[in-house]
Amino acid sequence: MENPKPGDMTADYVTLLSAGQFLIPGFIDCHIHAAQFPNLGVGYDRGLLDWLETYTFPLEKHYSDHNFSEKVYDVVVKRTLTMGTTTACYFASLYGESSVILGQKAAQFGQRSLIGKVNMNVKRNDGYCETTEESIINTKKFITDINKIESPLVKPIITPRFALSCDMELMKELAKLAKKFDVHIQTHISENLDEIEAVRHLFKDYSSYSAVYDEAGLLTNKTILAHGIYLTDTELDLLNKRGTSVSHCPSSNTCLRSGLCDVKKLKSHGVKVGLGTDVSGGQSSSIIDAMRSALQVSNHIAIQTPGYEPLNYKDVFYLATLGGATALALDEHIGNLVPGKQFDALVIDLNVSTGPLDNLIEYTLEEKLQRLIYSGDDRNIVEVYVAGQRVK
Amino acid sequence: MENPKPGDMTADYVTLLSAGQFLIPGFIDCHIHAAQFPNLGVGYDRGLLDWLETYTFPLEKHYSDHNFSEKVYDVVVKRTLTMGTTTACYFASLYGESSVILGQKAAQFGQRSLIGKVNMNVKRNDGYCETTEESIINTKKFITDINKIESPLVKPIITPRFALSCDMELMKELAKLAKKFDVHIQTHISENLDEIEAVRHLFKDYSSYSAVYDEAGLLTNKTILAHGIYLTDTELDLLNKRGTSVSHCPSSNTCLRSGLCDVKKLKSHGVKVGLGTDVSGGQSSSIIDAMRSALQVSNHIAIQTPGYEPLNYKDVFYLATLGGATALALDEHIGNLVPGKQFDALVIDLNVSTGPLDNLIEYTLEEKLQRLIYSGDDRNIVEVYVAGQRVK
Ligand SMILES: [Zn+2]
Ligand SMILES: [Zn+2]
Repeated sequence: MENPKPGDMTADYVTLLSAGQFLIPGFIDCHIHAAQFPNLGVGYDRGLLDWLETYTFPLEKHYSDHNFSEKVYDVVVKRTLTMGTTTACYFASLYGESSVILGQKAAQFGQRSLIGKVNMNVKRNDGYCETTEESIINTKKFITDINKIESPLVKPIITPRFALSCDMELMKELAKLAKKFDVHIQTHISENLDEIEAVRHLFKDYSSYSAVYDEAGLLTNKTILAHGIYLTDTELDLLNKRGTSVSHCPSSNTCLRSGLCDVKKLKSHGVKVGLGTDVSGGQSSSIIDAMRSALQVSNHIAIQTPGYEPLNYKDVFYLATLGGATALALDEHIGNLVPGKQFDALVIDLNVSTGPLDNLIEYTLEEKLQRLIYSGDDRNIVEVYVAGQRVK
Repeated sequence: MENPKPGDMTADYVTLLSAGQFLIPGFIDCHIHAAQFPNLGVGYDRGLLDWLETYTFPLEKHYSDHNFSEKVYDVVVKRTLTMGTTTACYFASLYGESSVILGQKAAQFGQRSLIGKVNMNVKRNDGYCETTEESIINTKKFITDINKIESPLVKPIITPRFALSCDMELMKELAKLAKKFDVHIQTHISENLDEIEAVRHLFKDYSSYSAVYDEAGLLTNKTILAHGIYLTDTELDLLNKRGTSVSHCPSSNTCLRSGLCDVKKLKSHGVKVGLGTDVSGGQSSSIIDAMRSALQVSNHIAIQTPGYEPLNYKDVFYLATLGGATALALDEHIGNLVPGKQFDALVIDLNVSTGPLDNLIEYTLEEKLQRLIYSGDDRNIVEVYVAGQRVK
């Protein structure tokens, strides 16, 4: 209690970091499918549309079972907190009550989160879909039920899966709900060439994938779109105009061979960008892995593009923290460690004896941050705080 | 003792794997710079030639200090064994006596290894070089000293750094030494466009980078060349003819923005290929990471090449085990678990409670292997055996 300096610091208690430890803002995962967690690390032999049918929808159908939901979502929240994800923007499944369980787990373990009950009204043989009416009723109830949890950390997010799963009528109704309840919106866009072609075929009257969502009213300044690999300049200008963000999901885009997303291009159009793990299209629930993958993708673009300046470790660190907060329109509250914001933070220790790093020479603080991003893992995240509460 | 089946198995003792565990061949790292370990995770803002001057050579100069060598090499061997590397093909530093310390550590901790004292006789201002005569004398002494360790696991390997560090005279003398002592050879080739251009400029009379090494007599059936990203068809045919191998180092090639190496092309020319971490050009000492990076690079090639079939998880698993053994001309002894070969093996457990994976559903053995490669880490490697001795 004698140590605190500099300044006239007073506090009920003071935590002193030990030598070599340092504090960073909590990681923000702008796109993660909680329901797909059991498929992590398997099934990367297909492209997006095949992969959805073969691996993803059959798994997601299991969440009609509340015991299964409970079991999985308990693990998902604990695991992502361990990975340093203080804020997660989740896709759950089609089932509202099951999706509420995810919100309860987030509240229980203290993770800041946006929880999405997935909407799909395009008819499917396996029954993993709703009618338009069901979809709207269930979504309203879902919003009410999430709000009943009464956690300041947990909010609902309107979640049409993507334009191939929802018709225009449903998308318009969902946009109205988002407006009425003043909540966030998330969906997927422009991830895969076959997907884009299918959207073009299905929505012939619209000039682009983004124009479809814009017509529905889904592009707001609280909307985040996953992927956006193949967005045209016109589409990016539209997103910028609407204040709509993109979640860059590099691991997923590589695992499913969707494409290489040029983050610098998105940013040059003024579009806000965050990072997403996109479990289980992505093979890791770690935002450290997502930062590393973003560097890899950007380096590969640079290798093939003369004069292209790739993202550096500071750029991806921004994407993982304040960039993500901005993309989720939560930057008033989180994203960095400044007075007036919530204390969502990680204590990093590269000297953990059971960790992946050996510290054979002295490193500067900047080099330590590089080492965390390039070579560290969750073992180097020794404490996690959300809203001032320690959760790891 | 009652369990062993099938067959008429008898043994002094029997180890039964617990449910969910499985056994795989030990990982083979065909290219790793032990001396660069302290730089792991830092300094990826430069391309190869700048990176060498800025980060690598200044660090390697420290190995004139035997205490420092002892400290680092102790950690390197322990760390790579923990990562499941049962065989490592090492670059040490210019200093022979220091490099012998690496061999002693490998013998002490039981790692199969090829140990290379680096040769560089092109004059440098910082003195990190030898004269031709010193280089030959020191290399002979190094070979003798490594053999004096009398470990069946530890062998010397002739190690000219690359064509920009050695003149033709030295390379020829080193090739003669390799022949005289019947030892392996390793060097770098065709990693970076600036490097290739510099080699072309320096060795004007030769038709290619490979032709330079071939003239020196360095291309043998016990030679392994790191990288080989830009090798031409003619060069690949030459390597195939000589029985010379390539160590694919995808993480390094991405971190230093060297290029995307097309493993399928190398293999289509009959060239043997193994995997290398290339620490610290690569940001990880884990062959699991190298497998993952090989998949990423191959997927990125596939994204941009219509009809290209990328490497799958089985392909990279082969590269990490039997492929590496073949590339190092050690496949008579190691690389898979068959009678007559050495027992270099890893016990894998995806259920480790402190590990990175959650096991929420049942997985087939093939899915477990996928999960290890895509999403696992060293925590899932619970036991490591080299030549039948448990070393983790
Ligand atoms: Zn997604
Ligand atoms: Zn190397």
